[in-house]
Amino acid sequence: MIIVMKAGASKKDKDVVLKCIRDLGYKPHVIHGETRDVIGAIGGDHGKTALQSLESMHGVEKVVPILQPYKLASKEVKKDASLISISDNVVIGGDKVIVMAGPCSVESEKQIIESAIAVKNAGAHVLRGGAFKPRTSPYSFQGLEEEGLKLLAKARELTGLPIVTEVIDPETADMVADYSDILQVGARNSQNFALLKKIGKLSRPVLLKRGMSMTIQEFLMSAEYIMSEGNQSVILCERGIRTFETATRNTLDLSAIPVLKGKTHLPVVIDPSHGTGDHHYVAPMCYASVAAGADGLIVEVHPDPEHASSDGAQSLKPSKFEAMMAKLKLFAEADGRTL
Amino acid sequence: MIIVMKAGASKKDKDVVLKCIRDLGYKPHVIHGETRDVIGAIGGDHGKTALQSLESMHGVEKVVPILQPYKLASKEVKKDASLISISDNVVIGGDKVIVMAGPCSVESEKQIIESAIAVKNAGAHVLRGGAFKPRTSPYSFQGLEEEGLKLLAKARELTGLPIVTEVIDPETADMVADYSDILQVGARNSQNFALLKKIGKLSRPVLLKRGMSMTIQEFLMSAEYIMSEGNQSVILCERGIRTFETATRNTLDLSAIPVLKGKTHLPVVIDPSHGTGDHHYVAPMCYASVAAGADGLIVEVHPDPEHASSDGAQSLKPSKFEAMMAKLKLFAEADGRTL
Amino acid sequence: MIIVMKAGASKKDKDVVLKCIRDLGYKPHVIHGETRDVIGAIGGDHGKTALQSLESMHGVEKVVPILQPYKLASKEVKKDASLISISDNVVIGGDKVIVMAGPCSVESEKQIIESAIAVKNAGAHVLRGGAFKPRTSPYSFQGLEEEGLKLLAKARELTGLPIVTEVIDPETADMVADYSDILQVGARNSQNFALLKKIGKLSRPVLLKRGMSMTIQEFLMSAEYIMSEGNQSVILCERGIRTFETATRNTLDLSAIPVLKGKTHLPVVIDPSHGTGDHHYVAPMCYASVAAGADGLIVEVHPDPEHASSDGAQSLKPSKFEAMMAKLKLFAEADGRTL
Amino acid sequence: MIIVMKAGASKKDKDVVLKCIRDLGYKPHVIHGETRDVIGAIGGDHGKTALQSLESMHGVEKVVPILQPYKLASKEVKKDASLISISDNVVIGGDKVIVMAGPCSVESEKQIIESAIAVKNAGAHVLRGGAFKPRTSPYSFQGLEEEGLKLLAKARELTGLPIVTEVIDPETADMVADYSDILQVGARNSQNFALLKKIGKLSRPVLLKRGMSMTIQEFLMSAEYIMSEGNQSVILCERGIRTFETATRNTLDLSAIPVLKGKTHLPVVIDPSHGTGDHHYVAPMCYASVAAGADGLIVEVHPDPEHASSDGAQSLKPSKFEAMMAKLKLFAEADGRTL
Repeated sequence: MIIVMKAGASKKDKDVVLKCIRDLGYKPHVIHGETRDVIGAIGGDHGKTALQSLESMHGVEKVVPILQPYKLASKEVKKDASLISISDNVVIGGDKVIVMAGPCSVESEKQIIESAIAVKNAGAHVLRGGAFKPRTSPYSFQGLEEEGLKLLAKARELTGLPIVTEVIDPETADMVADYSDILQVGARNSQNFALLKKIGKLSRPVLLKRGMSMTIQEFLMSAEYIMSEGNQSVILCERGIRTFETATRNTLDLSAIPVLKGKTHLPVVIDPSHGTGDHHYVAPMCYASVAAGADGLIVEVHPDPEHASSDGAQSLKPSKFEAMMAKLKLFAEADGRTL
Repeated sequence: MIIVMKAGASKKDKDVVLKCIRDLGYKPHVIHGETRDVIGAIGGDHGKTALQSLESMHGVEKVVPILQPYKLASKEVKKDASLISISDNVVIGGDKVIVMAGPCSVESEKQIIESAIAVKNAGAHVLRGGAFKPRTSPYSFQGLEEEGLKLLAKARELTGLPIVTEVIDPETADMVADYSDILQVGARNSQNFALLKKIGKLSRPVLLKRGMSMTIQEFLMSAEYIMSEGNQSVILCERGIRTFETATRNTLDLSAIPVLKGKTHLPVVIDPSHGTGDHHYVAPMCYASVAAGADGLIVEVHPDPEHASSDGAQSLKPSKFEAMMAKLKLFAEADGRTL
Repeated sequence: MIIVMKAGASKKDKDVVLKCIRDLGYKPHVIHGETRDVIGAIGGDHGKTALQSLESMHGVEKVVPILQPYKLASKEVKKDASLISISDNVVIGGDKVIVMAGPCSVESEKQIIESAIAVKNAGAHVLRGGAFKPRTSPYSFQGLEEEGLKLLAKARELTGLPIVTEVIDPETADMVADYSDILQVGARNSQNFALLKKIGKLSRPVLLKRGMSMTIQEFLMSAEYIMSEGNQSVILCERGIRTFETATRNTLDLSAIPVLKGKTHLPVVIDPSHGTGDHHYVAPMCYASVAAGADGLIVEVHPDPEHASSDGAQSLKPSKFEAMMAKLKLFAEADGRTL
Repeated sequence: MIIVMKAGASKKDKDVVLKCIRDLGYKPHVIHGETRDVIGAIGGDHGKTALQSLESMHGVEKVVPILQPYKLASKEVKKDASLISISDNVVIGGDKVIVMAGPCSVESEKQIIESAIAVKNAGAHVLRGGAFKPRTSPYSFQGLEEEGLKLLAKARELTGLPIVTEVIDPETADMVADYSDILQVGARNSQNFALLKKIGKLSRPVLLKRGMSMTIQEFLMSAEYIMSEGNQSVILCERGIRTFETATRNTLDLSAIPVLKGKTHLPVVIDPSHGTGDHHYVAPMCYASVAAGADGLIVEVHPDPEHASSDGAQSLKPSKFEAMMAKLKLFAEADGRTL
C-alpha cells in the first residue's frame, strides 16, 4: 500500500499515520517529495482492508493499493495457461478454439434435439441451453427446470456433445451439476458469493460470466472465490458490459481478451450473442474474438428464432451459424489454431 | 408493442409480420408513414417476449415496447404512497424522514452496542449493521454471521432501535428474518432472483438496494419479483451507480428520487455512504437527498473508522453524525417534514 | 510519480528504469516490498509526461501519478473561495445562492422579453438564453446568432438582469463577449482547447460546463486552461454525465458539489434542466443542489414550452419556476444562506 | 414520431395533443390500446423538434422518434460502400485494408523521418503524426504547429506516404489542409460543430474520431454536419468509449464496426492505440478489427516510446509494428481482402 499525504499535512498527522501502519503490523517507509510525503507500507496482505481505511485519517489524501488482490487466478502464481478438460475430446485453453452453441432456453424436446443436431453438424463442440432462467421480469418464462436438464441430457446422449447450462442458486447447484458438464454462472450472479462458494466445492468446470458492470479485477476476484474453495476449472466469459451506447444491448469488451491473458492463466470465452443482442452482429464479433485470441465462443442458435421463448432477436438460425463456422475456421487458422 | 418496419420493407415482409402478430393473439394496426410503416400490436402482456423477437424478422427495423413491465410496483395500480411499518413508532413513506445508521459490519459486542447508543442519541430511528458480508475478495472479513445477528438483537433490546441487516442467500434468509426487522438485499444480489423469490415469501419489510448498473426499470422489476410472491413491503434504496467517474466510489443518482416517485408508490431511501465512498461527502449528500424528497437515509457510522473491518473510509464518526442530524432536521422542515 | 515494478522484474529492468528517472531530472527512491519494488520519482512537474511513458518499459507494472495536475484552480494554491462579480449586485461564490434562468434559445423579441420579465419577477438574478446553439443535428435550429445577442441586450436593458449566453468558437468569442456578462462554454466544447485559450484571454466571467464524460479532474484541467491564459473568473457547472441510465437524459452528479468544494476555490453551479432532461425533475434537483452546497443554479424557463425551438421538454413554465423559487428560498435558509 | 399517452390520460388531454400535432403540419393517427392510446404523427422532418417537445404536455408519457436523423450518411440514401481516395494508390473502403501509422506527435525531423521510413517498410499506407495537439493539460506539449506540418510534408516527400494529421480549430484548418492528405478531427472535437462546418467546406478527406461518450447515432450526426456542407469524404474512426473499466484507457467498441456497416456507406477505421492505451493490447485489437470488417487501422508507432512527448505507453516500437503487420496480412486474407 502507498499512503499519499496531503500537501499541507502536519508532522503530527504523519506521526499518527506512521503509528497506525506499525500497529497494523506493517513497516512504514517515507518518501519526502517536493510538495508532499508518500508512505509505503511494507508487509503482506493481512491488514489490507485496515490500511485502506487510513484514507479517512486527517492529513491523508489517498491510499493506493499496489498488489493485485487475486492469487490463485493470477499469472504470477501459475505462468502456464490452464487447460480445462470438458470431455474426452474437448479441452478449453489450448490450440483448438472451442465453440459452445444452442438455444437460450430449453423449450421442448423437439427444439433442443433439433438445435443439438444442427450445431453439432456445423462443428460446435459443446451444447448450450438454459433450464433455469434468470429473467428480469417475474412474469417471463423461467425455464423448464429439472425437466429441461433431462432434455439436455437426452440431447447429449444423442449427439455426444457435452452440455453447459446455468445454475442460479446454491440449492439446485448439485442437481444441475449431476446433469451437466459445465456449470454456467450468469452475469447477474457474478457476485452472488454464496453461489460462487457453493460451486467452488463442486468438481464441475465453471463458465463464469462477467457481470454487466464488473471491472476485470472484480471478475478475477469472483473466479478467485470459486478457486479458493477448491475448484480450479474456471472459464472466464466476457459477455458485454453496460455502457451509455444503446445501438447494441451491451458493449462487447474484446480488449478484455488480451488484458485477461496478461493477468491470468484461465481460459477466456466470448459471448457475442448477449454482448451485442442482435444476430446481425454475432458473426463479425465471433471472428474478432478469435482473432484477438479468445479460447472459445458461446453462441445462441435457435431453429426458429421468431418463436423463441427468450432472446430470439440475438439468436442465429442454423444456416447462418453454419456459414459463420466455415468462415471462423479461416480466422482460427490465420491465428495458428484449429477449430 | 410498436413494430417499426424498415424503409425498404416489401409487402411480403409486412404480411409475414402481420400474420405473426395475429398468431400471437394480438390485433395489428398499421400506420402508413411517409417513408416507412409502423405497426401497433394491440393486446395484453401474454405474448410480449415473442413480440420482441419479431425484431429478428426480415424487414423489421425495431420493436418498441409501450407498456411498463411492472404492475404491483407501479403507481398506475396503486396511486397512494405506501407506508411501511417497521416498528410501533417507525413508519417509512410518510411525513417523517427515517434515518438508519450504524457500522458497515458488526465486529464485536462493544462496537455494535457503542454504535447503537451513539446513533440513537443522535436521533437515528433504525440500527444498521452487517452480519453476513458480501465482499469482493474471498480473503476479506465475511462477517460474524449468526453471532453478529445475536449481537444486533442485543443492541435492539438495549436501545429499542429496530434492525436492518443483509441477507445473502435463500438458505440463511429465514434465520436473518428471525433476528431482524428489515431484510436488506445488497446491490450485488439485486438480480439474484432466487433470493428475491425467497424473500418475497417472508413477511419482513425489505430494503432493496439498486444494483451498480441497474436501470430504474430493472430496479422496479426486482421489487416486482418480491411483491409478486406476496411481500408488498419493499423499500427502494439508491446507493450509487457505476460510471466512468473515479473521484467518488460510485455516482449517487439523486434524480432517481423524483423519477421513482413518479413511477411507484414504494418509499425511497438513499445510501450516501456507499454512494460516495468517502465520509467527507456523506453529510452534503444526506441534505440533498432529503431536499430531493427521499423518505429516508441509511448511513454508515462507526465509533473508530480507522480500525473498521470494512468501509472505514466512508463511515462517519459519531460526533460528525450528530452534527449532520442537527442540520438535516432543518432541511426536513424546509420540506414540510420532520426528522 | 510512483513507479510500480512487476513482481518478477529483474535487477537489470530496475536499473534501466532508475537511469531513465535520473535522465529525466528526477531523484529515484526505491521501496523494497515483499513481492515487488516501488520507486518514487522525486522532483517537479517538468517531466511528468515522460515519467508516465515509463509504463511501456520492461519490468514496469504501472505508473501512479501523485500530484494533482492543476494548480491555479486548486485549493492548495488559493484556500479561500473565489467570489466572482457579475454585476453590481450579483456575486457568485458567497452566501447568496445565484439563480440563472431563461429559455434554451432566444427565439424572438417577444419570447425573450417575456421570459426575462417572468424570471426576474420570480427572483432570478441572471438571464440565460442561447444565440449560438450547438445542436446535434445540422438540420436543427442553430440560433439567431448576433440578432439573438441584440435581443438579449435589450432584455437586459429592460430588466437589469445580467446575461449568460453560449460562445461556440474562437472567431465569434469577442462578439459574444461584447454583448454578454457571462460567457458560457457548453458541454460539447468543454475540451475544445482552442476555444478555452481564446476565452482565457477575455475579461468576462466564464460558466464552464462539464463535458458529458468528463472526470472531475479533467473538468478542473479545462478550467486551468482558461485560468492559465489570465482569466481567473471561472464558474464550474455540473450538467449531468452520460451513464447507462435512460430514465433521465443524463445523470446529474450532485456529489460533484462536495468533491469540487474539496479541491477548488471556484464556485459551482448546477444545471438540473440538462441534467435530467425532464421538467418534472427540475425542482427537486434544484432543492437538492442548494442543500448540497451549490453556489447557484441555471434553469431553463420558457413561456410556452410546447412550442420551444429546442429543449421544450425540460423547460419550466414561469408559474412552476415561481413556485420552485419560493420553496428554494427555504432550503437556502436551512443552509444558512439567502436567495 | 409516436406519441405514447399515459394510462389515465383524459379525452381533453388527447384532444389538445391531436390539435398540436395538426398545428405542426402533421397528420395524427390514433391506435387505441388496451390500457393507453398511442398516436402516430405522419409527416416529414420539418417539425421534429417541436413534436419532441410534446413530451412536456399533460397526459403524454413519452415521444418516440421513428426516423433516423441522418440522411447523407445513411445507407438508405446511398446503398453502396463509399470509396474514398487519398492518393493515387490509397483508397479506403474497398478490398484493401488501409493502415495509417506513425507517432502521436511530430517531435523533430529525425523522429518523424525515422518513423515514416519504419512504418513504410513495414507496409503502412499512410503516415500519421500530430502537429497541433489537443492536450488535457495546458502545461503539456502542445505540438510543433506549422513547423510540424512542414516536417510531415518532408516525410511524405521522402517516402511517398500520404499524411493524416489533426486540425483543432476553424482558424488553422486551411493551413492544415494545405499540408496534409487527410484531416483528422479528434475525439474531443467530435461535436465542435463550428469546426465540423468549416471542414465540411474543404475538399480534403476527413478522419472523424468518435467522441468518448458519443452514441453511434451522434457519431453519424457529426459526419452529417461535414457532409451537409459539401464534403462527402468522411472516414469514421472508432477509438474507444469511456466506461467504468479502468484496465484499459478506454473501452474499444468493436461492435461499432458491424453496427456502422449496417447504417452507413462510409468507411470505418479503428484506433486501437487510443482505444486501449497500452501497447501490449494493440496487436490483438488490430487483428480483431480486421476480422470484424474494419476498412482500416490507425496505429501509434514511435522509434523511442520511452522518450515520446505524448502517449509513449500506447506506442508500438517499429519492430513490434512490423511483426503485427505480418500477422495482420493473414487475417485480412482470411476475410478475403488484402493488406
